[in-house]
Amino acid sequence: MRDSFHKDLDTISEQLVEMTRLARLAMSGATTALLEADLPLAESIIAADQQIDALSRELDRRSVDVLARQQPVATDLRMVVTAMRMSSDLERMGDLAKHLAEVARRRYPDCAIKPVMRSTVVQMGQVAERMVAKTGSVIAGHDVDTALALESDDDEMDRLHEHVFNMLTNSNWNHGTEAAVDATLVARYYERYADRAVLVGRGVVYLVTGRFKQQS
Amino acid sequence: MRDSFHKDLDTISEQLVEMTRLARLAMSGATTALLEADLPLAESIIAADQQIDALSRELDRRSVDVLARQQPVATDLRMVVTAMRMSSDLERMGDLAKHLAEVARRRYPDCAIKPVMRSTVVQMGQVAERMVAKTGSVIAGHDVDTALALESDDDEMDRLHEHVFNMLTNSNWNHGTEAAVDATLVARYYERYADRAVLVGRGVVYLVTGRFKQQS
Repeated sequence: MRDSFHKDLDTISEQLVEMTRLARLAMSGATTALLEADLPLAESIIAADQQIDALSRELDRRSVDVLARQQPVATDLRMVVTAMRMSSDLERMGDLAKHLAEVARRRYPDCAIKPVMRSTVVQMGQVAERMVAKTGSVIAGHDVDTALALESDDDEMDRLHEHVFNMLTNSNWNHGTEAAVDATLVARYYERYADRAVLVGRGVVYLVTGRFKQQS
Repeated sequence: MRDSFHKDLDTISEQLVEMTRLARLAMSGATTALLEADLPLAESIIAADQQIDALSRELDRRSVDVLARQQPVATDLRMVVTAMRMSSDLERMGDLAKHLAEVARRRYPDCAIKPVMRSTVVQMGQVAERMVAKTGSVIAGHDVDTALALESDDDEMDRLHEHVFNMLTNSNWNHGTEAAVDATLVARYYERYADRAVLVGRGVVYLVTGRFKQQS
């Protein structure tokens, strides 16, 4: 019975890591699609989101099945419930990458990212990819230090997000309203993606230490 | 044992209904704060969000405790797991109302909502309040028909959201970039709030029918 339970947990953990891999691919592709106004790439990112959704649903079904069959308590129970939350966060990260690709598609054949925004979006994409890569290794290795380091990555993302807002509102933005709307949404999607990565990291910290850091 | 379990479920259900009440108050206040540039009201909405957060954490603790003590299976298990998801959706609705209040605060003493946007924001607020009120009665009464009706409310919100985007990008927007950024975010927050209300409704449909409608 115990062995079967830990086999289930291993499978759940592997599926979570696979979700981080897909969420990373989606983010990487979405950033490129945005920067290069690459319509076929944007379309493929949008279509691929259903893979993450399907994995999330399967993981939820498996978790409920484990709860019903194995009736875990204490730490074991905490693991299953936390895995379900992380699955939901990763599914949402996939959605946010899809939303970025949708901005690229909506603006095609124009590029949604004006030259003035370009280097900030490049950086946001890099921070986002770094964060999702960390969530994968954090889940696989129950690595609390790396999980906590996600908080400072998130601070960096918040600064980039703030920078976009300053560009839009404090300086003499002369790239039109449409580009301002795109920039507002794009910055928000990156920032939310980073927030979710932090929540996944906190889930692992909670599993290992039994203490959940409150959402700020 | 069974009686104790159903008492727990009743408490969880009551807490969810209380969360809908708080999420509705927050939405109502946030919309007024936005339209009237009412700083004290915005501040109070922002501060009150911690009540919803605390209720959500308490509900999660109680749910995990119920899983551990009662070891529910089948429908009973589904109820507890679904309640946790709904708690997370309602907590997020509170956050989104807070974000609206933050826009009002950021723009004070100016009004974040330009006259041209006013009637659309009034309507978005009305649809949002109607939806959260429905989620409360849907949870309390396990009312599938009303839960399904949330989907058409959400269509109405999507149309309003689309209308804002058309105003911003298709017509001759001459209210400045700052107002365009505010309008983009405000419309997005209302739209996400409605999406979450739909998810809460789907949770109830799932509980009653055993079938979960896939996220579109």
